[in-house]
Amino acid sequence: MPSYQAPVADVLFLLNDVLRMQDHDDLAGYAEASPDIVVAVLDEAAKLAGQQLQPVNLSGDQEGCRRAADGSVQTPKGFKAAYDAYAEGGWIGLAFDPAYGGQGLPYLLAAAVSEFFISANMSLSMYPGLTAGAAAALLTHGSEELKRLYAPKMLEGRWTGTMNLTEPHCGTDLGLLKTRATRRDDGSFSLTGQKIFISAGEHDLTENIVHLVLARIEGAPAGVKGISLFVAPKFLLDAAGNPSEKNAVSCGSIEHKMGIHGNSTCVMNYDGAQGWLVGEENRGLNAMFVMMNEARLMVGVQGLAQSEVAYQNAASYARERLQGRALTGAKSPEKPADSLLVHPDIRRILLEIRAFNEAGRAFALWLALQSDIAHRSPDAKAREKAADLLGLMTPVLKGVLTDRGFDNCVKAQQVFGGHGYIVEWGMEQFVRDARIAQIYEGANGIQALDLVGRKLPANGGRAITAFLTEVGAFLKANDGDEALKPLLGPLSASLGHLQKATLWLMQNALAAPDNAGAAATDYMHLLGLTALGYMWAKIAKAAFADADPARADFLQAKRACALFHAERILPETALRLARIQTGAGVTMSLPAELF
Amino acid sequence: MPSYQAPVADVLFLLNDVLRMQDHDDLAGYAEASPDIVVAVLDEAAKLAGQQLQPVNLSGDQEGCRRAADGSVQTPKGFKAAYDAYAEGGWIGLAFDPAYGGQGLPYLLAAAVSEFFISANMSLSMYPGLTAGAAAALLTHGSEELKRLYAPKMLEGRWTGTMNLTEPHCGTDLGLLKTRATRRDDGSFSLTGQKIFISAGEHDLTENIVHLVLARIEGAPAGVKGISLFVAPKFLLDAAGNPSEKNAVSCGSIEHKMGIHGNSTCVMNYDGAQGWLVGEENRGLNAMFVMMNEARLMVGVQGLAQSEVAYQNAASYARERLQGRALTGAKSPEKPADSLLVHPDIRRILLEIRAFNEAGRAFALWLALQSDIAHRSPDAKAREKAADLLGLMTPVLKGVLTDRGFDNCVKAQQVFGGHGYIVEWGMEQFVRDARIAQIYEGANGIQALDLVGRKLPANGGRAITAFLTEVGAFLKANDGDEALKPLLGPLSASLGHLQKATLWLMQNALAAPDNAGAAATDYMHLLGLTALGYMWAKIAKAAFADADPARADFLQAKRACALFHAERILPETALRLARIQTGAGVTMSLPAELF
Repeated sequence: MPSYQAPVADVLFLLNDVLRMQDHDDLAGYAEASPDIVVAVLDEAAKLAGQQLQPVNLSGDQEGCRRAADGSVQTPKGFKAAYDAYAEGGWIGLAFDPAYGGQGLPYLLAAAVSEFFISANMSLSMYPGLTAGAAAALLTHGSEELKRLYAPKMLEGRWTGTMNLTEPHCGTDLGLLKTRATRRDDGSFSLTGQKIFISAGEHDLTENIVHLVLARIEGAPAGVKGISLFVAPKFLLDAAGNPSEKNAVSCGSIEHKMGIHGNSTCVMNYDGAQGWLVGEENRGLNAMFVMMNEARLMVGVQGLAQSEVAYQNAASYARERLQGRALTGAKSPEKPADSLLVHPDIRRILLEIRAFNEAGRAFALWLALQSDIAHRSPDAKAREKAADLLGLMTPVLKGVLTDRGFDNCVKAQQVFGGHGYIVEWGMEQFVRDARIAQIYEGANGIQALDLVGRKLPANGGRAITAFLTEVGAFLKANDGDEALKPLLGPLSASLGHLQKATLWLMQNALAAPDNAGAAATDYMHLLGLTALGYMWAKIAKAAFADADPARADFLQAKRACALFHAERILPETALRLARIQTGAGVTMSLPAELF
Repeated sequence: MPSYQAPVADVLFLLNDVLRMQDHDDLAGYAEASPDIVVAVLDEAAKLAGQQLQPVNLSGDQEGCRRAADGSVQTPKGFKAAYDAYAEGGWIGLAFDPAYGGQGLPYLLAAAVSEFFISANMSLSMYPGLTAGAAAALLTHGSEELKRLYAPKMLEGRWTGTMNLTEPHCGTDLGLLKTRATRRDDGSFSLTGQKIFISAGEHDLTENIVHLVLARIEGAPAGVKGISLFVAPKFLLDAAGNPSEKNAVSCGSIEHKMGIHGNSTCVMNYDGAQGWLVGEENRGLNAMFVMMNEARLMVGVQGLAQSEVAYQNAASYARERLQGRALTGAKSPEKPADSLLVHPDIRRILLEIRAFNEAGRAFALWLALQSDIAHRSPDAKAREKAADLLGLMTPVLKGVLTDRGFDNCVKAQQVFGGHGYIVEWGMEQFVRDARIAQIYEGANGIQALDLVGRKLPANGGRAITAFLTEVGAFLKANDGDEALKPLLGPLSASLGHLQKATLWLMQNALAAPDNAGAAATDYMHLLGLTALGYMWAKIAKAAFADADPARADFLQAKRACALFHAERILPETALRLARIQTGAGVTMSLPAELF
């Protein structure tokens, strides 16, 4: 059975020493997040993750969700109790507006604890995670009445939320969607159509489910400009706002999937279901994007979270499993064999994972901080810069953390040899669960295209310029620092590759957009790797500044991982640049029928 | 439902135009493999794969193997009929000695058709695949009596074979194994112990199962030098050589695995089972290595085969699925959307897979040809060189083809978006099935260590020198070829990286073996990539030499893929070299307790 221990000390180090959240008292909710509150929140979250969520992760995968003939869906044993503990802890509303039942704490803190929950049980954490996303969309775009009716119950966890975008013939290309909305006399709508891949579409955890649904109002323009967003609860609400009559929406089937078996992925049939418009007519995609941006950040965290729990188990196995002898001579001659950790290739695997995890966590929290600045700062200039970075880096975080997070789960599984392939050990579940994060909320190829096609050129490249400037300034400010030198050289080289690639895209992709498409994934990873290198430089700087002998080990590990990342991981940026610069010529040259 | 079409034309092109098997008439069996025989064999194999094996692949995965209370194991529906067709076709004995019921054809041909069978159904093909490996070990090391008793029935497919190495506490480190062998009065042995992860250990496909078992004879030295190999059939043989009494070996349980559900992976209990010594006492590992070397080549082919079938399905999906518009403007304005193939990033994914598959196939067949030369050539010098290359490249083929084959299955799955995650589409099965190939027959880290620790330094580096010389000679011979120029530049660069890395290992790994361990995986991939680049150069040369207008499309695709590989894939060798040259310092610096 795998185990999990939330990395509280690592998160605290990032919040306090690296990101210095105490310097952001001007952001709403930060003053309330005093150091002792932060510690208490992280400790509570760690307890929930370890004691309630993790123990039903492996069993939940094996049992899966079951749909009965009446369309109801049963979640795995123990999920209801674990979900209730999650809801009762107030975790869904942690960073939401107190006016609607939230706690008003930093989103930064919500992002930090969400990693713990996802590491412990990705399937289960999706139910409240989607609820938070749906509540955010309602609170941003819904009428005051809709907000009052739905948001408090959702933040309390009494009702969960879903997002209904995909249809059988369209996922990425939402302009093709066919679900239609017909006006009713009372101003509400009747929704008719079929949605697929609806996570948490039906289940037995809560008394109601709030569906956010994209549909086309009769007479609306074709394509994406004729799509509106609706809210349609599983049970309609009575005058007091409580669930009463069943709405005409039902789960037609649940999918058999590679992983996340504990989360019900439903085909949802809307047969004239009553729904209410959220935001303006034909601006549904815009409203849904609120939900999707936050969801993308959370999906990036899913990649990281699976990588973290996979690392913990692989490291513990490597410490304990005795197999073979060190190349340099027996290290434990009194035992039948040495531990796996004497083998450099095993260490290489573990360090590759860990060098990613710690910087990936810093990157996610750094981005969550940008989100808080963008939404909560009193300073318009600061808001603009943070919003730029948030827009630029959200697809990068989603794409890079899920691609590398998945690869890391595979690597961690490899440490176990044959046992890694066996269900009971739990390692293969991490691989199967992590896999979906590369696909949903916009497949990673779409993230890359969003990056190079939209985010990069926006406002004359203002966002990437801000990032290049920030890293450049960091390098300059620490130029004479001997301790940081082994890190700053590789980081500076990667920054140079990033600059060259950006320039290459400016010069070659405007006239020939296929050059952007062919470069997109490599550019996303080049930017992501540089960001991770920048995070390691910031972490190392904080670690070198800290001389606390009580945590000498902790700081030594940080410095070793930073160096490993600089030596072994960052050189990949040169490869990414080389690939980008080859352009789209050969890629586009093969006629379609020859594939 | 996924589909599969064996790439007969590609294989023929490799055999005839690239490897020129017709020039190897001096090898036993090659004269018999006339061009028309080769075509007939490939066509028959393609038919078996497509009509018998592939149709029960997805259903076999979902149904899995079931063990009854009496220890018997039931394979999935349709497996028995498909297995019988395989056996009746004479495929197991294709390349074996006619004196024992084989057909005496080139191993090269057996390797070629095995790819088809594995693409169509990896789980099913393991039953006869393991049988061939076990028969090879018996024929190489067994007494004449054992050979006569077992080999013909195995080559006929009436009995299957297994290899029993792993025990709960040891996989890689066989020196730790505990299964013991006690002498009986009649010269046979009683075997007692438990073996795990025994593929095809028990099933309902055949009337008998022939277990090859590693065990320690009472009084034998500790460690790997006290291990002997035994044959122990499920049913003991009567005087006529037919199965009679049940032997004291049984399947205690079957494993719940990530994939290859159609193959039974058994815990085998030996409770005083009667066994006969194969080869010399205490030389069991040596005998088992015959089986393992061939098995490693076949496992490499498994990686390739899964990558190929995954490519075929992804390419077909990409051609047919309409989603989004080309960046350069609508390509099919009359349709609701363009095909996925207008998107450069989709093409990038497909070309990455295909550029690997075609060169990977050439590499596997080139290595099978080396195996034939090593075992069948009348020329001692030629045998020596081929044996060198076979030894050097077997771990590379196994490690690189399974690592990249797995990655390719993941990429192909990605083309399907959300559908790729759904069981019914079959793409996620390829990922789960391919995963095991990186683990078994020596995890890939072990392959890398075998390469840098044993194969590379053997005979003063004679093998790697032979390979470097061969590629160097190719580059020189084609120096002025304008058509090949865009390929030879990158290949020459990669060869330079390989030379530098080899030199670095010679200078840095002898005194400090951890430098070899820390470099092992990168070196394996660097050598593998260079070999794949060399294969593409050979393929392209043959394609440029061929002006047959009837297959202009076929040859155009070859040239485009070769160029893609040179531009986009080969540059990775620079990264591998950079990583190698950082040495083991940082990797080994972190104390074990800080992992």
